[in-house]
Amino acid sequence: MILDKVYSPEDVKKLNIKEMQLLAEEIRQFIIKKVNTTGGHFGPNMGIVEATIAMHYVFNSPKDKFIFDVSHQCYPHKFLTGRKEGFTNPDKYYEYTGYTAPEESEHDLFKVGHTSTSVSLAAGVAKARDLKGENYNVIALIGDGSLSGGEALEGLNNGATLNSNFIVIVNDNDQSIAENHGGLYANLKELRENEGKSRNNFFEALGYDYYYVDNGNNIEGLIETFKRVKDINHPVVIHIYTKKGMGFERAEQEREAFHWILPGGLDAAQATQVSESYASITNDYILKKAKEDKTFIAINAATPGVFGWNKDFRKQLGKQYTDVGIAEEHAVAYASALAKMGAKPLFCVMSSFIQRTYDQLSQDLALNNSPLTILVYWGGISSADATHLCTFDIPLISNIPNIVYLAPTTKEEHLKMLDWAVNQTKYPVAIRVPNVDLISTGIEDKTDYSILNKYKLIQNGEKVALIGAGNFYSLAKETADFIEEKSGFKPTVINPVYLTGIDKELLENLKNNHKLVITLEDGEIDGGFGEKITRFYGNSDMRVLNYGSHKEFTDRTPLENLYEKYRLRKELIFEDIKMN
Amino acid sequence: MILDKVYSPEDVKKLNIKEMQLLAEEIRQFIIKKVNTTGGHFGPNMGIVEATIAMHYVFNSPKDKFIFDVSHQCYPHKFLTGRKEGFTNPDKYYEYTGYTAPEESEHDLFKVGHTSTSVSLAAGVAKARDLKGENYNVIALIGDGSLSGGEALEGLNNGATLNSNFIVIVNDNDQSIAENHGGLYANLKELRENEGKSRNNFFEALGYDYYYVDNGNNIEGLIETFKRVKDINHPVVIHIYTKKGMGFERAEQEREAFHWILPGGLDAAQATQVSESYASITNDYILKKAKEDKTFIAINAATPGVFGWNKDFRKQLGKQYTDVGIAEEHAVAYASALAKMGAKPLFCVMSSFIQRTYDQLSQDLALNNSPLTILVYWGGISSADATHLCTFDIPLISNIPNIVYLAPTTKEEHLKMLDWAVNQTKYPVAIRVPNVDLISTGIEDKTDYSILNKYKLIQNGEKVALIGAGNFYSLAKETADFIEEKSGFKPTVINPVYLTGIDKELLENLKNNHKLVITLEDGEIDGGFGEKITRFYGNSDMRVLNYGSHKEFTDRTPLENLYEKYRLRKELIFEDIKMN
Repeated sequence: MILDKVYSPEDVKKLNIKEMQLLAEEIRQFIIKKVNTTGGHFGPNMGIVEATIAMHYVFNSPKDKFIFDVSHQCYPHKFLTGRKEGFTNPDKYYEYTGYTAPEESEHDLFKVGHTSTSVSLAAGVAKARDLKGENYNVIALIGDGSLSGGEALEGLNNGATLNSNFIVIVNDNDQSIAENHGGLYANLKELRENEGKSRNNFFEALGYDYYYVDNGNNIEGLIETFKRVKDINHPVVIHIYTKKGMGFERAEQEREAFHWILPGGLDAAQATQVSESYASITNDYILKKAKEDKTFIAINAATPGVFGWNKDFRKQLGKQYTDVGIAEEHAVAYASALAKMGAKPLFCVMSSFIQRTYDQLSQDLALNNSPLTILVYWGGISSADATHLCTFDIPLISNIPNIVYLAPTTKEEHLKMLDWAVNQTKYPVAIRVPNVDLISTGIEDKTDYSILNKYKLIQNGEKVALIGAGNFYSLAKETADFIEEKSGFKPTVINPVYLTGIDKELLENLKNNHKLVITLEDGEIDGGFGEKITRFYGNSDMRVLNYGSHKEFTDRTPLENLYEKYRLRKELIFEDIKMN
Repeated sequence: MILDKVYSPEDVKKLNIKEMQLLAEEIRQFIIKKVNTTGGHFGPNMGIVEATIAMHYVFNSPKDKFIFDVSHQCYPHKFLTGRKEGFTNPDKYYEYTGYTAPEESEHDLFKVGHTSTSVSLAAGVAKARDLKGENYNVIALIGDGSLSGGEALEGLNNGATLNSNFIVIVNDNDQSIAENHGGLYANLKELRENEGKSRNNFFEALGYDYYYVDNGNNIEGLIETFKRVKDINHPVVIHIYTKKGMGFERAEQEREAFHWILPGGLDAAQATQVSESYASITNDYILKKAKEDKTFIAINAATPGVFGWNKDFRKQLGKQYTDVGIAEEHAVAYASALAKMGAKPLFCVMSSFIQRTYDQLSQDLALNNSPLTILVYWGGISSADATHLCTFDIPLISNIPNIVYLAPTTKEEHLKMLDWAVNQTKYPVAIRVPNVDLISTGIEDKTDYSILNKYKLIQNGEKVALIGAGNFYSLAKETADFIEEKSGFKPTVINPVYLTGIDKELLENLKNNHKLVITLEDGEIDGGFGEKITRFYGNSDMRVLNYGSHKEFTDRTPLENLYEKYRLRKELIFEDIKMN
């Protein structure tokens, strides 16, 4: 096996073309096996194998700097930079992250997992090189899908002004996570069809020198072009046309389904959602509402799969669906304007990615008080990679004026809130879609959510009141039962519903026969929901304990360990209470 | 006077070319007089007078929708839409905002004051129109400077895919607030030089139909082109070349100085900073440091004037200066990479605009723990327009892991912190530059700021402890003195220094002989600094009161009224204490 001889980029340089082609094949086979076991980004990595080999053959990492965009495509790079056992040895499958990680290797410059950052980061690296009077190549590798993000476009605009070596490889596989959207993609298509020679050229218009490589999976051609731009003294774009999913037939054809897969995803037929979930009931609502109201429109930013919006679903919505591509800022402004003009937009987004659009939430949306509905998915503490944590959305959203942020706890609440949010015309409303298995009471929710900040008193007890928001309502209830069992008194249990405000009357009343209030939220405590409760009681005898995650980036830490650390268990909370 | 006959767009339509030219002259004279009295955006408004008249002549607002970018250029529009007395009648000079404001007129769709939003908002308006089966023109008016912002670029990319009327007027006056930066601007220059006919065309590359108007201050030519695109059935860009500051000679020449002026700014020679300020001492430091260390680099996003970085200052820095243009996301990633590579970047930004880059602060910077220094200017409660509030930066920054956010209270502290931040290599550090007159102790600050979260106990007293952060340290001290005078006991006074962490030891010790802790911060309480203190004491007998601004968008409210409302006066705080 060629791979047996390859430990570092130096070893790649000793191979001939034929050997590199064999190496590519070997790497592919290991990726297939590994990703089918652990899950992970499949299509992007399969497509970039040859380009990665060619990059390491021509350039000299780590002296030359590779900056991977979103790093969904860094597995082949890991094979060639001392980390191949993370793919070849099943015992080490979980040893390395799925993203670039400086703590793993000197060949990785940045910890990256959100898109559209590479060109901006690379511009900074190039500028640092120039200030220090150093001499090396700076190479950003960015996929076509990531290009539409504002940070990438800003970076391209400014990178063009560097009067020095600056190489942007555009890995064009004619696909974002789902299909691409936007005028830029028509231009990329034109460029592919004319082998780089069409009159309109987005990159040249921005001032880049430009090279086109028609077959981005042909090592020989890639090497030839990379050699031409190596040590170049000005900004250049190399546009390479690769095949997403290359080497695994179904992945080549179903490029969206195989962008990222679950363990076993290569064996199974396309995963189908069988049981009812918060996503499935939301989607049923969307289809129904879209039929009833032609101004209803579902919007997302390049991650339809996260919400279970498959091709058939999108087709059914037709013009009542917009995927803006990777462009969360645009998505919020666009949706805000739709709401302002009397349409009924629903923007769905992952908690980790709503971070990409704070100013638009504040200025385009909240300041204009547009009645947009936002569904925030996956919010909560998890064992995710540090780049994809979903614990910051409550501090982020809940301190912006005017926005109403709701935390449903059951199917019935979620549907009622959703319907209220979509049909009301007074506020921007965000709903934190529960990140847990669906809970159904079977009883229709008749709450009037237009009465803002009215908490639900579920169990009227004494001494201790537990306020459990959203996902953690269940923990509040369990803990209350545990306390009752252990201590003989019945604590109060509250579902606060609103993450953005205080039910002063209810909180005031608790003072009568409670000594301690406990808040539980599935996210960062700092700046979050619980601190607002604590502040309310700052001027009283009431004691308050806030539970949630700490202000930190955790990295693939098992959920149970995090719950332990944050004391998010009924036994631990009970211990804390006894200390009081 | 023609203006006497003009109350609404209908009246504009009755004028002939000659009359419209006279009208333009009249509007200019009133803008000169009014802005010289009140201060405001001067250059952008002077340049767009003819285009605004032509827009209202050809299109039918409010049926057709105008969406102004950043709305620095909406004054002529206000003249023509029922608000001219805001300029002609000195008694009404302060009646209207300097930005588009839906509460003022049906001709204003959005409240706007941050840049780069118009194209994204307009895309939403156009989509709403199409969903509702309505029929009107949607026109975004965006300046060349605003084009470099990610939200604008994302919007252009997606707007291109609308299969319906979508008109983007690019108001190119060859100038952002300061000069433009980026590859896009080389293309605009090329287009201007070739009267729109150069081979490379950024807008055509994105799929837009394209028209060029060489003299954007010629009403006749503008009308002709606007008529050609009126009711067009696809996306089009009209690139008009206007003269910033048109009609006021010095403003035409010194385009940066006259972008926005203070009252009296047209009479005075260019304003020069005479007395020492936090900006001036910072700039002295920057120049000195840049000479000593060739890897030191000062970075900003299109607002050098805010920091007192005039042309001479920028020239002195040479390659050690980057203005990325309006591109805050790129600025943070670029600066983070510079720091990571061992250079010493300093990024300066206004509090209101740091909102534009949350995800980059989190992912590109904090997650990578790059030792970047950020100076946040103008943070604090103010009588600013709702679009330019500077009260949200503490909640925004202080809940992101890894970042150290410092609040100096004197000249000596600021310089010591700045020097420490720039030279250390462990953390991203932000410093909230005081938004008050410079205070100097004359005593060198010898604090070691690498000992994180160590508060300064300034006055060791009893019963009540006042923790006054940054700008509000003085208020804490004053209040303590007032309490001592009125009640006879000496309260404790603390300068917390760190907005991002808790000095547990000091706070714990306060429990011994204090009953009440008061926090004071010059910004939003919700999610801010004070709540972290309150949470610390949640589980104790200590009472805590948090002072700061409320979660709301205030709009040109006099500062004294805000202080009254938020009880930010020693007498009011003393009243609150007595209630305890």
